Amino acid sequence: MSQSLSSTLSAVSSLAEVDSRSTPGFDGDKAAGKAALAELGTELADLQERLHAHGTTGDPRSVLVVLQGMDTSGKGGTIEKVVGLVSPLGVRIASFKKPTPEELAHDFLWRVERRLPSAGELGVFDRSHYEDVLIGRVRRLADVDEVERRYDAINAFERRYVESGGTVLKCLLHISPDDQAARLLARLDDPTKHWKFNPGDIDERELWDDYQDAYDLVLQRTSTDVAPWHVVPSGRKWYRNWAVGRLLLEHLRALDLTWPEADYDVDEQRARLAASS
Amino acid sequence: MSQSLSSTLSAVSSLAEVDSRSTPGFDGDKAAGKAALAELGTELADLQERLHAHGTTGDPRSVLVVLQGMDTSGKGGTIEKVVGLVSPLGVRIASFKKPTPEELAHDFLWRVERRLPSAGELGVFDRSHYEDVLIGRVRRLADVDEVERRYDAINAFERRYVESGGTVLKCLLHISPDDQAARLLARLDDPTKHWKFNPGDIDERELWDDYQDAYDLVLQRTSTDVAPWHVVPSGRKWYRNWAVGRLLLEHLRALDLTWPEADYDVDEQRARLAASS
Repeated sequence: MSQSLSSTLSAVSSLAEVDSRSTPGFDGDKAAGKAALAELGTELADLQERLHAHGTTGDPRSVLVVLQGMDTSGKGGTIEKVVGLVSPLGVRIASFKKPTPEELAHDFLWRVERRLPSAGELGVFDRSHYEDVLIGRVRRLADVDEVERRYDAINAFERRYVESGGTVLKCLLHISPDDQAARLLARLDDPTKHWKFNPGDIDERELWDDYQDAYDLVLQRTSTDVAPWHVVPSGRKWYRNWAVGRLLLEHLRALDLTWPEADYDVDEQRARLAASS
Repeated sequence: MSQSLSSTLSAVSSLAEVDSRSTPGFDGDKAAGKAALAELGTELADLQERLHAHGTTGDPRSVLVVLQGMDTSGKGGTIEKVVGLVSPLGVRIASFKKPTPEELAHDFLWRVERRLPSAGELGVFDRSHYEDVLIGRVRRLADVDEVERRYDAINAFERRYVESGGTVLKCLLHISPDDQAARLLARLDDPTKHWKFNPGDIDERELWDDYQDAYDLVLQRTSTDVAPWHVVPSGRKWYRNWAVGRLLLEHLRALDLTWPEADYDVDEQRARLAASS
Protein backbone atom coordinates (compact mmCIF):
# COMPACT_ATOMS: atom_id res chain seq x y z
CA MET A 1 0.00 0.00 0.00
CA SER A 2 1.60 3.26 -1.07
CA GLN A 3 -0.41 5.43 1.31
CA SER A 4 -1.31 4.44 4.85
CA LEU A 5 -4.94 3.61 5.54
CA SER A 6 -4.72 6.00 8.48
CA SER A 7 -3.99 8.97 6.23
CA THR A 8 -6.76 7.94 3.82
CA LEU A 9 -9.47 7.58 6.45
CA SER A 10 -8.49 10.59 8.53
CA ALA A 11 -8.92 13.03 5.63
CA VAL A 12 -12.66 13.45 6.17
CA SER A 13 -14.35 16.46 7.71
CA SER A 14 -18.02 15.61 7.10
CA LEU A 15 -19.86 12.29 7.02
CA ALA A 16 -21.78 13.48 3.94
CA GLU A 17 -18.58 12.94 1.93
CA VAL A 18 -18.49 9.22 2.69
CA ASP A 19 -20.43 6.33 1.15
CA SER A 20 -20.99 3.88 4.00
CA ARG A 21 -20.60 0.96 1.61
CA SER A 22 -17.33 2.12 0.05
CA THR A 23 -14.10 0.24 0.74
CA PRO A 24 -11.25 2.78 0.55
CA GLY A 25 -7.80 1.25 0.51
CA PHE A 26 -9.11 -2.25 -0.13
CA ASP A 27 -9.36 -3.76 -3.56
CA GLY A 28 -11.29 -7.00 -3.19
CA ASP A 29 -14.54 -8.65 -2.18
CA LYS A 30 -15.94 -9.96 1.10
CA ALA A 31 -14.04 -13.24 0.99
CA ALA A 32 -10.80 -11.41 0.27
CA GLY A 33 -11.53 -8.95 3.08
CA LYS A 34 -12.09 -11.70 5.62
CA ALA A 35 -8.90 -13.44 4.50
CA ALA A 36 -6.96 -10.17 4.71
CA LEU A 37 -8.14 -9.59 8.29
CA ALA A 38 -7.15 -13.11 9.32
CA GLU A 39 -3.71 -12.49 7.78
CA LEU A 40 -3.26 -9.41 9.96
CA GLY A 41 -3.93 -11.52 13.03
CA THR A 42 -0.48 -13.01 13.56
CA GLU A 43 1.35 -9.69 13.42
CA LEU A 44 -1.31 -7.94 15.50
CA ALA A 45 -1.07 -10.59 18.22
CA ASP A 46 2.74 -10.45 18.14
CA LEU A 47 2.86 -6.65 18.46
CA GLN A 48 0.23 -6.59 21.20
CA GLU A 49 2.24 -9.15 23.19
CA ARG A 50 5.34 -6.97 22.79
CA LEU A 51 3.41 -3.95 24.03
CA HIS A 52 2.23 -5.97 27.02
CA ALA A 53 5.80 -7.19 27.65
CA HIS A 54 7.11 -3.62 27.68
CA GLY A 55 4.43 -2.64 30.17
CA THR A 56 6.03 -5.01 32.68
CA THR A 57 9.41 -3.27 32.37
CA GLY A 58 8.47 0.30 33.25
CA ASP A 59 7.75 1.44 29.68
CA PRO A 60 4.74 3.77 29.96
CA ARG A 61 3.34 3.17 26.49
CA SER A 62 -0.24 2.03 25.95
CA VAL A 63 -2.74 2.10 23.09
CA LEU A 64 -6.36 3.24 23.21
CA VAL A 65 -8.89 2.44 20.48
CA VAL A 66 -11.99 4.65 20.65
CA LEU A 67 -15.05 3.27 18.84
CA GLN A 68 -17.97 5.57 18.15
CA GLY A 69 -20.94 5.21 15.84
CA MET A 70 -24.72 5.12 15.61
CA ASP A 71 -26.57 2.10 17.01
CA THR A 72 -25.81 -1.03 14.95
CA SER A 73 -22.69 0.52 13.42
CA GLY A 74 -20.81 -2.44 14.84
CA LYS A 75 -18.80 -1.36 17.85
CA GLY A 76 -19.35 -4.73 19.51
CA GLY A 77 -18.77 -6.69 16.33
CA THR A 78 -15.50 -4.88 15.71
CA ILE A 79 -14.30 -5.72 19.21
CA GLU A 80 -15.23 -9.36 18.74
CA LYS A 81 -13.59 -9.73 15.32
CA VAL A 82 -10.54 -7.46 15.65
CA VAL A 83 -9.65 -7.42 19.34
CA GLY A 84 -10.48 -11.14 19.36
CA LEU A 85 -7.38 -11.65 17.19
CA VAL A 86 -5.01 -10.80 20.04
CA SER A 87 -4.51 -12.41 23.45
CA PRO A 88 -6.98 -11.33 26.14
CA LEU A 89 -3.98 -10.73 28.42
CA GLY A 90 -3.29 -7.02 28.49
CA VAL A 91 -6.55 -6.01 26.82
CA ARG A 92 -8.94 -3.73 28.72
CA ILE A 93 -12.38 -3.04 27.29
CA ALA A 94 -14.51 -0.24 28.71
CA SER A 95 -18.16 0.10 27.71
CA PHE A 96 -19.60 3.49 28.51
CA LYS A 97 -23.29 3.49 29.41
CA LYS A 98 -25.57 6.18 30.70
CA PRO A 99 -23.60 7.90 33.49
CA THR A 100 -24.37 6.94 37.07
CA PRO A 101 -25.29 9.59 39.67
CA GLU A 102 -21.74 9.36 41.05
CA GLU A 103 -20.29 9.92 37.58
CA LEU A 104 -22.63 12.85 36.95
CA ALA A 105 -21.39 14.45 40.15
CA HIS A 106 -17.98 14.87 38.49
CA ASP A 107 -16.68 16.45 35.30
CA PHE A 108 -17.56 14.33 32.26
CA LEU A 109 -13.96 13.16 31.85
CA TRP A 110 -13.70 11.81 35.40
CA ARG A 111 -15.07 8.38 34.56
CA VAL A 112 -13.00 8.27 31.39
CA GLU A 113 -9.69 8.95 33.13
CA ARG A 114 -10.30 5.98 35.42
CA ARG A 115 -10.71 3.63 32.49
CA LEU A 116 -7.68 4.62 30.43
CA PRO A 117 -5.38 1.70 29.65
CA SER A 118 -2.39 1.21 31.96
CA ALA A 119 1.18 0.87 30.73
CA GLY A 120 1.39 -1.98 28.23
CA GLU A 121 -2.35 -2.33 27.82
CA LEU A 122 -4.45 -2.21 24.69
CA GLY A 123 -7.57 -0.35 25.79
CA VAL A 124 -10.80 -0.26 23.84
CA PHE A 125 -13.59 2.22 24.44
CA ASP A 126 -17.01 0.96 23.34
CA ARG A 127 -18.58 4.41 23.18
CA SER A 128 -16.57 7.03 25.04
CA HIS A 129 -16.30 10.62 26.24
CA TYR A 130 -17.63 11.61 22.81
CA GLU A 131 -21.12 10.66 23.95
CA ASP A 132 -20.96 13.85 26.00
CA VAL A 133 -20.80 15.95 22.83
CA LEU A 134 -23.05 13.67 20.75
CA ILE A 135 -26.15 12.65 22.71
CA GLY A 136 -25.12 15.46 25.07
CA ARG A 137 -25.61 17.98 22.26
CA VAL A 138 -28.52 16.35 20.42
CA ARG A 139 -30.57 15.68 23.55
CA ARG A 140 -29.42 18.90 25.25
CA LEU A 141 -28.26 16.98 28.30
CA ALA A 142 -25.85 19.85 28.86
CA ASP A 143 -26.30 23.51 27.92
CA VAL A 144 -24.68 24.98 24.82
CA ASP A 145 -21.72 26.64 26.59
CA GLU A 146 -20.90 23.44 28.41
CA VAL A 147 -20.91 21.39 25.21
CA GLU A 148 -18.66 24.02 23.58
CA ARG A 149 -16.25 23.78 26.51
CA ARG A 150 -16.02 20.04 26.12
CA TYR A 151 -14.36 19.98 22.69
CA ASP A 152 -11.29 21.79 23.98
CA ALA A 153 -11.35 19.78 27.18
CA ILE A 154 -11.34 16.56 25.14
CA ASN A 155 -8.42 17.76 23.03
CA ALA A 156 -6.40 18.67 26.10
CA PHE A 157 -7.28 15.36 27.76
CA GLU A 158 -6.22 13.31 24.74
CA ARG A 159 -3.03 15.34 24.32
CA ARG A 160 -2.09 14.66 27.93
CA TYR A 161 -2.69 10.94 27.44
CA VAL A 162 -0.48 10.95 24.35
CA GLU A 163 2.25 12.99 26.03
CA SER A 164 2.37 10.51 28.90
CA GLY A 165 2.97 7.56 26.56
CA GLY A 166 -0.41 6.86 24.99
CA THR A 167 -1.35 6.24 21.38
CA VAL A 168 -4.95 7.03 20.43
CA LEU A 169 -6.78 5.47 17.49
CA LYS A 170 -10.23 7.04 17.06
CA CYS A 171 -12.63 5.27 14.71
CA LEU A 172 -16.01 6.60 13.69
CA LEU A 173 -17.97 3.66 12.33
CA HIS A 174 -20.09 5.28 9.63
CA ILE A 175 -23.40 3.76 8.46
CA SER A 176 -26.38 5.09 6.53
CA PRO A 177 -30.00 5.15 7.72
CA ASP A 178 -30.70 2.24 5.36
CA ASP A 179 -27.85 0.21 6.83
CA GLN A 180 -29.28 0.82 10.27
CA ALA A 181 -32.86 -0.05 9.30
CA ALA A 182 -31.73 -3.40 7.91
CA ARG A 183 -29.72 -4.21 11.03
CA LEU A 184 -32.42 -3.16 13.50
CA LEU A 185 -34.91 -5.29 11.57
CA ALA A 186 -32.51 -8.22 11.70
CA ARG A 187 -32.38 -7.84 15.48
CA LEU A 188 -36.16 -7.81 15.71
CA ASP A 189 -36.43 -10.85 13.45
CA ASP A 190 -34.00 -12.99 15.45
CA PRO A 191 -34.95 -13.97 19.03
CA THR A 192 -31.26 -14.52 19.87
CA LYS A 193 -30.71 -10.82 19.09
CA HIS A 194 -33.73 -9.34 20.88
CA TRP A 195 -31.55 -8.37 23.85
CA LYS A 196 -29.51 -6.10 21.59
CA PHE A 197 -32.56 -4.05 20.62
CA ASN A 198 -33.95 -1.24 22.71
CA PRO A 199 -37.06 0.77 21.78
CA GLY A 200 -34.99 3.86 22.53
CA ASP A 201 -32.84 3.01 19.50
CA ILE A 202 -35.71 4.15 17.26
CA ASP A 203 -36.11 7.39 19.22
CA GLU A 204 -32.44 8.16 18.52
CA ARG A 205 -32.83 7.07 14.90
CA GLU A 206 -35.49 9.74 14.42
CA LEU A 207 -32.84 12.33 15.26
CA TRP A 208 -30.49 11.00 12.56
CA ASP A 209 -29.71 14.37 10.96
CA ASP A 210 -29.02 15.99 14.31
CA TYR A 211 -26.58 13.22 15.11
CA GLN A 212 -24.84 13.60 11.75
CA ASP A 213 -24.38 17.30 12.49
CA ALA A 214 -23.01 16.48 15.93
CA TYR A 215 -20.60 13.95 14.39
CA ASP A 216 -19.42 16.51 11.85
CA LEU A 217 -18.70 18.92 14.69
CA VAL A 218 -16.75 16.18 16.45
CA LEU A 219 -14.66 15.63 13.31
CA GLN A 220 -14.03 19.34 12.89
CA ARG A 221 -13.33 20.17 16.52
CA THR A 222 -11.53 17.11 17.85
CA SER A 223 -9.42 15.79 14.99
CA THR A 224 -6.00 16.85 16.23
CA ASP A 225 -2.47 16.08 15.15
CA VAL A 226 -2.00 13.71 18.08
CA ALA A 227 -5.45 12.12 17.89
CA PRO A 228 -7.10 12.36 14.46
CA TRP A 229 -10.44 10.76 13.71
CA HIS A 230 -10.72 7.98 11.16
CA VAL A 231 -14.05 7.66 9.39
CA VAL A 232 -14.50 3.94 8.72
CA PRO A 233 -17.23 3.13 6.17
CA SER A 234 -19.17 0.44 8.02
CA GLY A 235 -22.00 -0.54 5.73
CA ARG A 236 -20.01 -3.67 4.91
CA LYS A 237 -19.03 -5.43 8.12
CA TRP A 238 -16.08 -7.26 6.56
CA TYR A 239 -14.56 -3.97 5.37
CA ARG A 240 -15.12 -2.31 8.75
CA ASN A 241 -13.36 -5.15 10.53
CA TRP A 242 -10.43 -5.23 8.12
CA ALA A 243 -10.06 -1.44 8.22
CA VAL A 244 -9.98 -1.21 12.02
CA GLY A 245 -7.57 -4.16 12.14
CA ARG A 246 -5.35 -2.51 9.58
CA LEU A 247 -5.45 0.85 11.39
CA LEU A 248 -4.54 -0.84 14.66
CA LEU A 249 -1.66 -2.62 12.95
CA GLU A 250 -0.34 0.65 11.50
CA HIS A 251 -0.48 2.29 14.92
CA LEU A 252 1.26 -0.62 16.64
CA ARG A 253 3.95 -0.77 13.96
CA ALA A 254 4.68 2.92 14.51
CA LEU A 255 5.72 2.10 18.10
CA ASP A 256 8.75 0.09 16.87
CA LEU A 257 8.14 -2.58 19.47
CA THR A 258 11.17 -4.79 19.96
CA TRP A 259 11.20 -7.39 22.73
CA PRO A 260 12.37 -5.94 26.04
CA GLU A 261 15.93 -6.83 26.96
CA ALA A 262 16.64 -8.86 30.08
CA ASP A 263 17.54 -6.72 33.10
CA TYR A 264 19.43 -9.69 34.61
CA ASP A 265 22.42 -11.78 33.54
CA VAL A 266 20.99 -14.69 31.54
CA ASP A 267 23.95 -17.04 32.04
CA GLU A 268 24.04 -16.37 35.75
CA GLN A 269 20.34 -17.23 36.04
CA ARG A 270 20.83 -20.38 33.97
CA ALA A 271 23.49 -21.48 36.46
CA ARG A 272 21.22 -20.69 39.41
CA LEU A 273 18.44 -22.69 37.82
CA ALA A 274 20.73 -25.69 37.22
CA ALA A 275 21.84 -25.57 40.84
CA SER A 276 18.25 -25.51 42.07
CA SER A 277 17.09 -28.62 40.18
CA MET B 1 -18.44 -38.61 29.68
CA SER B 2 -20.29 -40.43 32.43
CA GLN B 3 -18.81 -38.37 35.25
CA SER B 4 -18.21 -34.64 35.05
CA LEU B 5 -14.64 -33.46 34.83
CA SER B 6 -15.46 -31.11 37.68
CA SER B 7 -16.21 -33.97 40.06
CA THR B 8 -13.07 -35.83 38.93
CA LEU B 9 -10.68 -32.91 39.42
CA SER B 10 -12.21 -31.62 42.65
CA ALA B 11 -11.69 -34.90 44.52
CA VAL B 12 -8.10 -34.10 45.48
CA SER B 13 -6.92 -33.03 48.91
CA SER B 14 -3.13 -33.10 48.43
CA LEU B 15 -0.97 -32.30 45.42
CA ALA B 16 1.19 -35.33 46.21
CA GLU B 17 -1.68 -37.50 44.92
CA VAL B 18 -1.49 -36.02 41.42
CA ASP B 19 0.92 -36.74 38.55
CA SER B 20 1.37 -33.41 36.78
CA ARG B 21 1.56 -35.19 33.42
CA SER B 22 -1.59 -37.26 33.86
CA THR B 23 -4.68 -36.53 31.76
CA PRO B 24 -7.72 -37.51 33.84
CA GLY B 25 -10.97 -37.58 31.90
CA PHE B 26 -9.25 -37.35 28.53
CA ASP B 27 -8.42 -40.38 26.44
CA GLY B 28 -6.22 -39.17 23.59
CA ASP B 29 -2.97 -37.52 22.61
CA LYS B 30 -1.85 -33.92 22.13
CA ALA B 31 -3.38 -33.53 18.68
CA ALA B 32 -6.68 -34.93 19.92
CA GLY B 33 -6.56 -32.62 22.94
CA LYS B 34 -6.04 -29.53 20.82
CA ALA B 35 -8.87 -30.57 18.51
CA ALA B 36 -11.14 -31.24 21.48
CA LEU B 37 -10.48 -27.76 22.89
CA ALA B 38 -11.23 -26.13 19.54
CA GLU B 39 -14.48 -28.10 19.43
CA LEU B 40 -15.53 -26.66 22.78
CA GLY B 41 -15.03 -23.16 21.41
CA THR B 42 -18.33 -22.70 19.64
CA GLU B 43 -20.47 -23.70 22.61
CA LEU B 44 -18.28 -21.76 25.04
CA ALA B 45 -18.58 -18.60 22.94
CA ASP B 46 -22.34 -19.08 22.61
CA LEU B 47 -22.89 -19.57 26.34
CA GLN B 48 -20.63 -16.65 27.25
CA GLU B 49 -22.61 -14.40 24.91
CA ARG B 50 -25.84 -15.54 26.56
CA LEU B 51 -24.39 -14.76 29.98
CA HIS B 52 -23.39 -11.32 28.73
CA ALA B 53 -26.86 -10.80 27.23
CA HIS B 54 -28.52 -11.64 30.54
CA GLY B 55 -26.30 -9.15 32.30
CA THR B 56 -27.94 -6.37 30.28
CA THR B 57 -31.40 -7.38 31.50
CA GLY B 58 -30.94 -7.16 35.26
CA ASP B 59 -29.91 -10.78 35.76
CA PRO B 60 -27.20 -10.68 38.46
CA ARG B 61 -25.33 -13.81 37.38
CA SER B 62 -21.63 -13.74 36.61
CA VAL B 63 -18.82 -16.28 36.45
CA LEU B 64 -15.38 -16.04 38.01
CA VAL B 65 -12.46 -18.28 37.04
CA VAL B 66 -9.64 -18.26 39.59
CA LEU B 67 -6.27 -19.43 38.29
CA GLN B 68 -3.52 -20.28 40.76
CA GLY B 69 -0.27 -22.16 40.34
CA MET B 70 3.49 -21.98 40.67
CA ASP B 71 5.47 -19.82 38.22
CA THR B 72 5.28 -21.27 34.67
CA SER B 73 2.22 -23.38 35.52
CA GLY B 74 0.49 -21.58 32.68
CA LYS B 75 -1.98 -19.06 34.06
CA GLY B 76 -1.30 -16.71 31.17
CA GLY B 77 -1.27 -19.45 28.56
CA THR B 78 -4.61 -20.75 29.81
CA ILE B 79 -6.15 -17.30 29.51
CA GLU B 80 -4.80 -16.92 25.99
CA LYS B 81 -5.95 -20.34 24.77
CA VAL B 82 -9.23 -20.79 26.68
CA VAL B 83 -10.57 -17.30 27.31
CA GLY B 84 -9.39 -16.42 23.80
CA LEU B 85 -12.11 -18.74 22.50
CA VAL B 86 -14.90 -16.38 23.56
CA SER B 87 -15.65 -12.79 22.60
CA PRO B 88 -13.64 -10.15 24.48
CA LEU B 89 -16.93 -8.35 25.14
CA GLY B 90 -18.01 -9.11 28.66
CA VAL B 91 -14.70 -10.61 29.74
CA ARG B 92 -12.79 -8.99 32.59
CA ILE B 93 -9.30 -10.18 33.44
CA ALA B 94 -7.65 -9.16 36.68
CA SER B 95 -3.96 -9.84 37.29
CA PHE B 96 -2.97 -9.60 40.93
CA LYS B 97 0.55 -8.37 41.53
CA LYS B 98 2.39 -7.43 44.68
CA PRO B 99 -0.08 -5.25 46.65
CA THR B 100 0.34 -1.49 46.50
CA PRO B 101 0.67 0.59 49.67
CA GLU B 102 -2.98 1.62 49.28
CA GLU B 103 -4.05 -2.01 48.98
CA LEU B 104 -1.95 -2.99 51.99
CA ALA B 105 -3.73 -0.31 54.01
CA HIS B 106 -6.95 -2.35 53.69
CA ASP B 107 -8.00 -5.91 54.46
CA PHE B 108 -6.53 -8.36 51.91
CA LEU B 109 -9.93 -8.88 50.25
CA TRP B 110 -10.49 -5.16 49.57
CA ARG B 111 -8.70 -5.15 46.25
CA VAL B 112 -10.33 -8.43 45.29
CA GLU B 113 -13.88 -7.20 45.88
CA ARG B 114 -13.27 -4.31 43.49
CA ARG B 115 -12.27 -6.64 40.70
CA LEU B 116 -15.09 -9.15 40.92
CA PRO B 117 -16.97 -9.54 37.62
CA SER B 118 -20.15 -7.51 37.23
CA ALA B 119 -23.49 -8.99 36.20
CA GLY B 120 -23.11 -10.85 32.92
CA GLU B 121 -19.33 -10.82 32.98
CA LEU B 122 -16.89 -13.67 32.76
CA GLY B 123 -14.13 -12.67 35.16
CA VAL B 124 -10.72 -14.27 35.28
CA PHE B 125 -8.28 -13.90 38.16
CA ASP B 126 -4.65 -14.37 37.13
CA ARG B 127 -3.44 -15.07 40.68
CA SER B 128 -5.89 -13.99 43.33
CA HIS B 129 -6.67 -13.59 47.03
CA TYR B 130 -5.04 -17.00 47.47
CA GLU B 131 -1.64 -15.35 47.20
CA ASP B 132 -2.36 -14.03 50.69
CA VAL B 133 -2.37 -17.56 52.10
CA LEU B 134 0.36 -18.89 49.77
CA ILE B 135 3.27 -16.47 49.52
CA GLY B 136 1.70 -14.84 52.58
CA ARG B 137 2.28 -18.03 54.57
CA VAL B 138 5.53 -19.21 52.98
CA ARG B 139 7.24 -15.82 53.20
CA ARG B 140 5.57 -14.93 56.53
CA LEU B 141 4.26 -11.70 55.09
CA ALA B 142 1.51 -11.98 57.70
CA ASP B 143 1.69 -13.56 61.12
CA VAL B 144 0.33 -17.04 61.77
CA ASP B 145 -2.96 -15.96 63.35
CA GLU B 146 -3.68 -13.63 60.48
CA VAL B 147 -3.08 -16.34 57.88
CA GLU B 148 -5.36 -18.65 59.85
CA ARG B 149 -8.08 -16.01 59.87
CA ARG B 150 -7.89 -15.66 56.12
CA TYR B 151 -9.08 -19.15 55.22
CA ASP B 152 -12.46 -18.56 56.84
CA ALA B 153 -12.59 -15.02 55.49
CA ILE B 154 -12.03 -16.37 51.96
CA ASN B 155 -14.76 -18.96 52.38
CA ALA B 156 -17.23 -16.35 53.61
CA PHE B 157 -16.25 -13.98 50.79
CA GLU B 158 -16.71 -16.60 48.09
CA ARG B 159 -20.01 -17.75 49.60
CA ARG B 160 -21.31 -14.19 49.52
CA TYR B 161 -20.28 -13.85 45.87
CA VAL B 162 -22.09 -17.09 45.02
CA GLU B 163 -25.19 -16.14 47.00
CA SER B 164 -25.41 -12.86 45.10
CA GLY B 165 -25.43 -14.59 41.71
CA GLY B 166 -21.84 -15.62 41.14
CA THR B 167 -20.40 -18.92 39.98
CA VAL B 168 -16.80 -19.66 41.00
CA LEU B 169 -14.48 -22.01 39.16
CA LYS B 170 -11.19 -22.41 41.03
CA CYS B 171 -8.35 -24.09 39.14
CA LEU B 172 -5.01 -25.03 40.68
CA LEU B 173 -2.60 -25.56 37.78
CA HIS B 174 -0.35 -28.30 39.10
CA ILE B 175 3.20 -28.80 37.81
CA SER B 176 6.26 -30.66 39.12
CA PRO B 177 9.70 -29.16 39.85
CA ASP B 178 10.96 -30.79 36.64
CA ASP B 179 8.16 -29.22 34.60
CA GLN B 180 9.09 -25.84 36.02
CA ALA B 181 12.83 -26.26 35.44
CA ALA B 182 12.23 -27.04 31.76
CA ARG B 183 9.94 -24.03 31.33
CA LEU B 184 12.19 -21.58 33.14
CA LEU B 185 15.10 -22.78 31.02
CA ALA B 186 13.02 -22.30 27.87
CA ARG B 187 12.39 -18.70 28.97
CA LEU B 188 16.10 -18.10 29.51
CA ASP B 189 16.94 -19.66 26.14
CA ASP B 190 14.49 -17.50 24.15
CA PRO B 191 15.10 -13.73 24.00
CA THR B 192 11.40 -13.15 23.18
CA LYS B 193 10.59 -14.73 26.54
CA HIS B 194 13.21 -13.00 28.73
CA TRP B 195 10.59 -10.52 29.96
CA LYS B 196 8.62 -13.39 31.48
CA PHE B 197 11.55 -14.44 33.65
CA ASN B 198 12.39 -12.85 36.97
CA PRO B 199 15.37 -13.86 39.12
CA GLY B 200 12.93 -13.95 42.04
CA ASP B 201 11.26 -16.95 40.36
CA ILE B 202 14.24 -19.08 41.40
CA ASP B 203 14.07 -17.80 44.96
CA GLU B 204 10.47 -18.99 45.14
CA ARG B 205 11.40 -22.27 43.44
CA GLU B 206 13.82 -23.01 46.27
CA LEU B 207 10.84 -22.98 48.63
CA TRP B 208 8.96 -25.58 46.54
CA ASP B 209 8.06 -27.90 49.40
CA ASP B 210 6.80 -25.04 51.54
CA TYR B 211 4.56 -23.94 48.68
CA GLN B 212 3.24 -27.46 48.20
CA ASP B 213 2.32 -27.54 51.89
CA ALA B 214 0.62 -24.16 51.57
CA TYR B 215 -1.33 -25.38 48.52
CA ASP B 216 -2.41 -28.50 50.40
CA LEU B 217 -3.72 -26.29 53.19
CA VAL B 218 -5.59 -24.22 50.62
CA LEU B 219 -7.21 -27.37 49.23
CA GLN B 220 -8.15 -28.60 52.68
CA ARG B 221 -9.38 -25.31 54.10
CA THR B 222 -11.02 -23.56 51.15
CA SER B 223 -12.61 -26.29 49.03
CA THR B 224 -16.23 -25.63 49.90
CA ASP B 225 -19.52 -26.89 48.51
CA VAL B 226 -20.10 -23.60 46.70
CA ALA B 227 -16.52 -23.12 45.53
CA PRO B 228 -14.49 -26.33 45.32
CA TRP B 229 -10.93 -26.43 44.04
CA HIS B 230 -10.06 -28.29 40.87
CA VAL B 231 -6.52 -29.62 40.63
CA VAL B 232 -5.62 -29.48 36.94
CA PRO B 233 -2.54 -31.51 36.00
CA SER B 234 -0.58 -28.96 33.97
CA GLY B 235 2.60 -30.70 32.94
CA ARG B 236 1.05 -31.07 29.49
CA LYS B 237 -0.14 -27.69 28.26
CA TRP B 238 -2.65 -29.13 25.83
CA TYR B 239 -4.35 -31.11 28.61
CA ARG B 240 -4.38 -28.11 30.94
CA ASN B 241 -6.06 -25.96 28.29
CA TRP B 242 -8.63 -28.59 27.40
CA ALA B 243 -9.40 -29.30 31.05
CA VAL B 244 -9.97 -25.65 32.00
CA GLY B 245 -12.08 -25.16 28.85
CA ARG B 246 -14.12 -28.23 29.69
CA LEU B 247 -14.57 -27.15 33.32
CA LEU B 248 -15.71 -23.71 32.19
CA LEU B 249 -18.16 -25.30 29.77
CA GLU B 250 -19.61 -27.51 32.51
CA HIS B 251 -20.06 -24.51 34.78
CA LEU B 252 -21.69 -22.40 32.06
CA ARG B 253 -24.01 -25.26 31.07
CA ALA B 254 -25.16 -25.54 34.67
CA LEU B 255 -26.54 -21.99 34.44
CA ASP B 256 -29.18 -23.08 31.87
CA LEU B 257 -28.64 -19.93 29.86
CA THR B 258 -31.47 -19.32 27.44
CA TRP B 259 -31.57 -16.10 25.42
CA PRO B 260 -33.27 -13.29 27.34
CA GLU B 261 -36.83 -12.57 26.22
CA ALA B 262 -37.69 -9.18 24.76
CA ASP B 263 -39.15 -6.78 27.32
CA TYR B 264 -40.91 -4.90 24.48
CA ASP B 265 -43.54 -5.81 21.87
CA VAL B 266 -41.59 -7.00 18.84
CA ASP B 267 -44.35 -6.35 16.29
CA GLU B 268 -44.96 -2.88 17.64
CA GLN B 269 -41.25 -2.05 17.31
CA ARG B 270 -41.18 -3.49 13.79
CA ALA B 271 -44.00 -1.11 12.85
CA ARG B 272 -42.21 1.84 14.47
CA LEU B 273 -39.06 0.98 12.55
CA ALA B 274 -40.93 0.79 9.24
CA ALA B 275 -42.51 4.18 9.92
CA SER B 276 -39.10 5.71 10.66
CA SER B 277 -37.44 4.64 7.41
